[in-house]
Amino acid sequence: MTEPPHTPPRLRLRLVFGPDIMFGPGKADLLDGIRETGSIAAAGRRMGMSYKRAWSLVETMNAAFAKPLVASARGGSGGGGAQLTEAGQAALAHYRRFEEAAARAGAEDIAALVAMLRPGLTMDISDDT
Amino acid sequence: MTEPPHTPPRLRLRLVFGPDIMFGPGKADLLDGIRETGSIAAAGRRMGMSYKRAWSLVETMNAAFAKPLVASARGGSGGGGAQLTEAGQAALAHYRRFEEAAARAGAEDIAALVAMLRPGLTMDISDDT
Repeated sequence: MTEPPHTPPRLRLRLVFGPDIMFGPGKADLLDGIRETGSIAAAGRRMGMSYKRAWSLVETMNAAFAKPLVASARGGSGGGGAQLTEAGQAALAHYRRFEEAAARAGAEDIAALVAMLRPGLTMDISDDT
Repeated sequence: MTEPPHTPPRLRLRLVFGPDIMFGPGKADLLDGIRETGSIAAAGRRMGMSYKRAWSLVETMNAAFAKPLVASARGGSGGGGAQLTEAGQAALAHYRRFEEAAARAGAEDIAALVAMLRPGLTMDISDDT
């Protein structure tokens, strides 16, 4: 069995604005999903997130920013629809540009870290730390 | 009461090498602590981490990299001491350089996001997402 070579790592970048105020890949992906599906529930669903959780994240974001990032109407059975506001589009764009810039700027050190990994690592060494 | 202005956010950058292989701020801080204290237990303690948890993270890192990052001897009551190997020093240095490069490269977009936050935000909008 040939082992796949290590692919470039995925970056998960979290901005911690305060002790309990942060913006990271989960919120960014949720905004992307709302933009693409027009629905908070649908955006959450495709991330494996409950309806309640997705709504809670949207409320968190809308409370943290001076202008809400998501405009929505709690609807009936079909849902009321949701979309990114101008502020939401701007915040998402800034975050994605930061991600790209970080990946570019760190490419050399990231590659060096990847080169240090054990070849053909297959064991489950799970740890979200 | 005057509200403090938003300070530059802290960045938490996590490299996801595979489905369950990642390197992020927790492991980096633990390596820093081991370097500074010469002890896995002491390094974990100052992060509010149990002895068992700190050891587990070290074992995870040593398994993920081709060469171990931490050399240690499980000792008696005083602990056996631990230090970063050359590989450990190199991995930590690469991660810290990546952090600095990312912060520099993303400074403009990060500042733009900070400027969009609600002024004087004091509520607890905790979410690690």
